[in-house]
Amino acid sequence: MFEFTVSARSGRARTGTFRTPHGDVRTPMFMPVGTQGSVKGISPHELLDIGSQIILANTYHLMLRPGPDLVAVHGGLPGFTAYPGPFLTDSGGFQVMSLGHMRKITEEGATFKSHLDGSLILLTPERSIGVQESLGADIIMAFDECPPYPASHEYVRNSLERTLRWLERSLTAKTRSDQALFPIVQGGIYHDLRAVSLQATVAFDTPGFAIGGLAVGESKEEMYPAISQTAQGLPESKPRYLMGVGHPEDLVAAMALGVDLFDCVYPTRTGRFGYALTDDGRLNMNSSAPRQQLMPIDPECDCYACRHYTRAYLAHLLRAEEMLAPRMLSLHNLCYLHRLVERASLAIASGTYREWAEEWAARYFKGNVPAWFTGAIQNVD
Amino acid sequence: MFEFTVSARSGRARTGTFRTPHGDVRTPMFMPVGTQGSVKGISPHELLDIGSQIILANTYHLMLRPGPDLVAVHGGLPGFTAYPGPFLTDSGGFQVMSLGHMRKITEEGATFKSHLDGSLILLTPERSIGVQESLGADIIMAFDECPPYPASHEYVRNSLERTLRWLERSLTAKTRSDQALFPIVQGGIYHDLRAVSLQATVAFDTPGFAIGGLAVGESKEEMYPAISQTAQGLPESKPRYLMGVGHPEDLVAAMALGVDLFDCVYPTRTGRFGYALTDDGRLNMNSSAPRQQLMPIDPECDCYACRHYTRAYLAHLLRAEEMLAPRMLSLHNLCYLHRLVERASLAIASGTYREWAEEWAARYFKGNVPAWFTGAIQNVD
Repeated sequence: MFEFTVSARSGRARTGTFRTPHGDVRTPMFMPVGTQGSVKGISPHELLDIGSQIILANTYHLMLRPGPDLVAVHGGLPGFTAYPGPFLTDSGGFQVMSLGHMRKITEEGATFKSHLDGSLILLTPERSIGVQESLGADIIMAFDECPPYPASHEYVRNSLERTLRWLERSLTAKTRSDQALFPIVQGGIYHDLRAVSLQATVAFDTPGFAIGGLAVGESKEEMYPAISQTAQGLPESKPRYLMGVGHPEDLVAAMALGVDLFDCVYPTRTGRFGYALTDDGRLNMNSSAPRQQLMPIDPECDCYACRHYTRAYLAHLLRAEEMLAPRMLSLHNLCYLHRLVERASLAIASGTYREWAEEWAARYFKGNVPAWFTGAIQNVD
Repeated sequence: MFEFTVSARSGRARTGTFRTPHGDVRTPMFMPVGTQGSVKGISPHELLDIGSQIILANTYHLMLRPGPDLVAVHGGLPGFTAYPGPFLTDSGGFQVMSLGHMRKITEEGATFKSHLDGSLILLTPERSIGVQESLGADIIMAFDECPPYPASHEYVRNSLERTLRWLERSLTAKTRSDQALFPIVQGGIYHDLRAVSLQATVAFDTPGFAIGGLAVGESKEEMYPAISQTAQGLPESKPRYLMGVGHPEDLVAAMALGVDLFDCVYPTRTGRFGYALTDDGRLNMNSSAPRQQLMPIDPECDCYACRHYTRAYLAHLLRAEEMLAPRMLSLHNLCYLHRLVERASLAIASGTYREWAEEWAARYFKGNVPAWFTGAIQNVD
């Protein structure tokens, strides 16, 4: 269980398979986010249709409502949500920081007021793991602090040291053998602190590792060296999960640096706002041009929306505030990211990842490929 | 084309098949409403899965946005919406009355201000038929006035006489032979006026007829005699469409009186509000009990929601305001009405409609079957 097999490499990019109790996950893979136990508007079978292989659910939200016990009596997330494949749950830490009110971090854990009813809640490594065991995901995350950006060197050092102590407590609290616990490497954008976090975290030899504390406001020029350093410092034989990253250009750049797993609300959220992801960049379906266009969102896409609907129809639904529009754009965007990692996998398998990424970027960026992207796919640190 | 064949009778209730250019419609049938060219949140293939056979779309809405020309360049509603079966469009008259501002009715037509941009629009029989020809539904409706309730005898008489003149103009304006135009019998709750409208309308010998002007605020005791009188006065050899009626108890009662087609926003609207239709009455999924129930909405239902989800999960999604909840409840409610008319058809085919309806009602009304229902299924006028 939790075996990771690398099947091909192209530069640092690689393809592989991660075995979990609910099925294999072929990497690189993007994980749709089902915050409250549902990928907004999309049914489990629509996810399977577009090639989803693992869904992320949020411990913070599900802990507050409906509560872990109700999910547990359903046999965990697959029984609760009817998605029959693997899940990953986060630790709740990140959302305590971003959503909880009046949060206070101590050695014990994080105290916050629920955004739902204002009740005071203490989330500790032990509680996070307990809740994640009730939720029953195949991959669970160590309880950590994701420091804000910007944060001082001293703040980040103290934070990552506490996160390491919380990692030990998380591993000690864990009782189920059918869940893989991934620790999270922190260190912000500080090279020396990343190195400290990396060295201490890798020592735990867990079935996989996450790269955390990024995509929180720093520039791409700050983010990519940190991704590169962390991915390179993680063992070749374990999957690497870059948390909270899901823009197409970031997937292509981070895969070049050896990242295997991604998650982000971006494809579904931007879809609800009327934007569609394509190889030509993000298409604004709220603008006037699509209202008269009889072509699909993306003629190269085989999702339900692209097989059945014109841009004109979907633009009409958006203006009319019909639920089918955000639903279809979310579905398309998820499908786009799934196809993107699939195309990347083919390029990796044929040993031509950099060439493929350059070609993809030339079209996506309309000729203005940013330096951070070129640096990432050329593995320039 | 537009042949109607009655296949079985039980009392006045009957089953039949109505042939249209986009496929056969087996009656009795409930038509889901796709107001703006989309049954809210539901994809065409989900409609086919639950047994939908014909979809209603609203001329008023589609005329204002996106406009009939855009639908026409898609080849009409099937091409625009990707629902491959038959459609019915209303004439726009009813919604001019209920949604248009500052409406004024003259012999020429109805003038109103668009609820979207305030522009002044004149809808005439000729314009309504022109728009409906662009939309391309298999069944189109004559332009009529649906008088408000209450309305004086004099008002209703003048209105129905104008509606008859508008019917002649509607038929004259019609140019497409692949669309069936249904006239609408009016007369409010006045027996003598219904008789006048009936006699004059039936004379046109169209492929089907509608019963209009009901379910607009009158009591069941006023509505059912009017349905009974109108249905009995319409030819046996043509389908009868009772407009805007879609509560389960009304379907069962009106089928007993010989009604073949129904439409209503009720199943989707009440679903979006968190209510589920069942043989035990309407289940309020917003209440506290379903939050802990591990059973499906309706153990006898085979819709996607009932096959995959517990009440507890759907109640959680409702509270969390997740789009999947209104979507799944809408789907279930439509499926419930489709199964209801299917069960009715089986009872009709076996000549036991009244017995079936009595048994259904005993459970649905929890023993308190109202007199109007009993009167209707016993065909007591």
